[in-house]
Amino acid sequence: MTDPVRIGVLGRGTVGGAFVEMVEARADAVEAASGRRPEIAGVLRRAEGEFDQILADSEIVVELIGGTDPAREYVLRALREGRHVVSANKQLIAQHGDELFEAAREAGVQLRFEAAVAGVIPVIRVIQESLVATELNKVFGIVNGTTNYILTEMAKTGAPYADALARAQELGYAEADPTDDVNGADAAAKMAILARLAFHTPVRLDDVDFEGIENVRPDDLEYAQELGLSLKLLGIAERRGDEISVRVFPCFLYRGHPLAPVEGPFNAVMVEAPAINEITMSGPGAGGIETASAVLGDVVSIVAGEAPVHEVRERLEIAGDVASAFYVHLEVADRPGVLAGIATVLGEHEVSVKSALQRGMGDDARLVMVMHECPESRFYAALDGIAKLDFMRSPPRAIRVLEEEFL
Amino acid sequence: MTDPVRIGVLGRGTVGGAFVEMVEARADAVEAASGRRPEIAGVLRRAEGEFDQILADSEIVVELIGGTDPAREYVLRALREGRHVVSANKQLIAQHGDELFEAAREAGVQLRFEAAVAGVIPVIRVIQESLVATELNKVFGIVNGTTNYILTEMAKTGAPYADALARAQELGYAEADPTDDVNGADAAAKMAILARLAFHTPVRLDDVDFEGIENVRPDDLEYAQELGLSLKLLGIAERRGDEISVRVFPCFLYRGHPLAPVEGPFNAVMVEAPAINEITMSGPGAGGIETASAVLGDVVSIVAGEAPVHEVRERLEIAGDVASAFYVHLEVADRPGVLAGIATVLGEHEVSVKSALQRGMGDDARLVMVMHECPESRFYAALDGIAKLDFMRSPPRAIRVLEEEFL
Repeated sequence: MTDPVRIGVLGRGTVGGAFVEMVEARADAVEAASGRRPEIAGVLRRAEGEFDQILADSEIVVELIGGTDPAREYVLRALREGRHVVSANKQLIAQHGDELFEAAREAGVQLRFEAAVAGVIPVIRVIQESLVATELNKVFGIVNGTTNYILTEMAKTGAPYADALARAQELGYAEADPTDDVNGADAAAKMAILARLAFHTPVRLDDVDFEGIENVRPDDLEYAQELGLSLKLLGIAERRGDEISVRVFPCFLYRGHPLAPVEGPFNAVMVEAPAINEITMSGPGAGGIETASAVLGDVVSIVAGEAPVHEVRERLEIAGDVASAFYVHLEVADRPGVLAGIATVLGEHEVSVKSALQRGMGDDARLVMVMHECPESRFYAALDGIAKLDFMRSPPRAIRVLEEEFL
Repeated sequence: MTDPVRIGVLGRGTVGGAFVEMVEARADAVEAASGRRPEIAGVLRRAEGEFDQILADSEIVVELIGGTDPAREYVLRALREGRHVVSANKQLIAQHGDELFEAAREAGVQLRFEAAVAGVIPVIRVIQESLVATELNKVFGIVNGTTNYILTEMAKTGAPYADALARAQELGYAEADPTDDVNGADAAAKMAILARLAFHTPVRLDDVDFEGIENVRPDDLEYAQELGLSLKLLGIAERRGDEISVRVFPCFLYRGHPLAPVEGPFNAVMVEAPAINEITMSGPGAGGIETASAVLGDVVSIVAGEAPVHEVRERLEIAGDVASAFYVHLEVADRPGVLAGIATVLGEHEVSVKSALQRGMGDDARLVMVMHECPESRFYAALDGIAKLDFMRSPPRAIRVLEEEFL
């Protein structure tokens, strides 16, 4: 049996708490994936000053303090003393990346920070690993969930900025002091990190121009909607020959743009390159659990070292009678009693109708219906019953419908 | 200086050719990312029988033959003789995964196959690495670009299935024999792989129920559009307690579903788990270059071994005057000559108008315009000029617009 991997956790806020819980709850899965069982070596609470002890007891240090002081000092010491580090701290990486990467290289250890940008969307892994052999042109997207929630709320309800912000604060999507989110500074730090990784060039926080959403007015959104536009706070990092441009600003998108449907506290990032055209990734912005999950993914990658070779962990049965919703297209005779006949058969098999359209006359009469979800065996029994009704002009056609509605 | 990493390539079709070219074109980038320069050790053409020589000369074997015979035998031999293997072959992994994974584990080598599913979308890396510590509920999406192109074409033009298929063949989105794509078998193989990785359980090709799109009629699409539905060929792998369900079938989606806007030959995959809510990833399906790019990403991961520590490769300047398109909101006096005055200022600075709306009367009169892209310095100079016009009731407001239109 191999030794457990001991993890020192710096900071015990929302994310720290969620991370410690997740390590305990998912210890079996981590062990199966990485070969070693995770164990919390210690948790540094603010000002308790037990850092030396935690460092001595840990193989991996997880930094969840936030801010740059004392996070920078702790992370530097951990790297220099040969510990792998996982951080969720965008300010730390954006402001002190050069120094930290150098320390990691010199010590031959890993520094991972997937959780620092775009919540659970694995954009850093995709840029650094999947697309490492590809020359990227552009990385852009919605990297701040707070502002995307506020803009969505303003567009949907016509609320002024202050009211939408208050609502975001009520729901926990904005902090008590929302300054860094709403003025674009948070997104700027994330874009500095993405630009650095995408273009392999140093990018300082000062290099990123940013504007926030504080001055957006409801009537801008209203008129823009008439023009088919929706507003997002975009971060854009682009390569233009030997130059790059890294900026954050509110920006209208036309309908049909892959980022236009990204609403509420979601994040989304697009990566463009000649060899891949474009990849779009979207998911929830950073909440405590999402961030903890991204941090734990980094921990597993460090422990596993190399790409995991797939291994069977359990043997699950293939499910039998699955439930589905269906669209049904019926070519029927144009006479009274048709709908009643069909409804009777559906009722006998407990299949209920969600919506229906009647179209055409005479020899072109047809009934198009969408059913609610039910076990497929029951639906097909009903369909067989319908097929036998004497007013059917041709066999019924059925196609499944995904019933879940989003956002 | 470290030795180059020698890569043996099995198969020289479209993907093989693109891969060999890409290795040469991107050798510097691969070296920078992984620490070693890639070199092609040999390329196995059909029936040339030089496999032994290529195996002897290679450290990594890239299998791009397709099909299971002789691919299975070659890959097994390469793994057993201690070579890392990268494959783009979904049939091979779906049908012989158990045997191949075991051979890789026993030999202590890597078997990577990102290119086998969903083109350039790094769904395998995300499931196997990013989300390895997360319990997944469901992996589903559009994993066949041919059928998605055909369904999009049918919905947009009202063309019958046969015509849309012919068009797909003309454009190279469907093969001369499209059977495996249109009957769902190709998607089924991909879903078997995704289900196996997501749920850590053996999944045989026989375990996957599949239906294709051959019987979809244009009037189904037409009526469904009235109900707000769009049709996709979906692959769905779901965990339900101790059972899993893995299926492929045509399925309607409501507007607002993240997969509804995925059109043409694109692929998209969603991953759902309690800890992450959901992640959606979309991108072009597998063309030669996209597949080669995914294969090369796997090669780099193998060579790099561990997560790359970020390293500066060049120093790019921050761009100065960037070009943008703008939305402009002007509160103006309600009198003749306003539009002419504004047009004159815009003309002086060579800023051209894409669309305009005039709204409100009297004290509520306003002009909302969207400009074409131009250097921002020129736009802001024009805006300053407009601000000074005597009919302006308040300072002009400007917000950027992303001019690119998608699909």
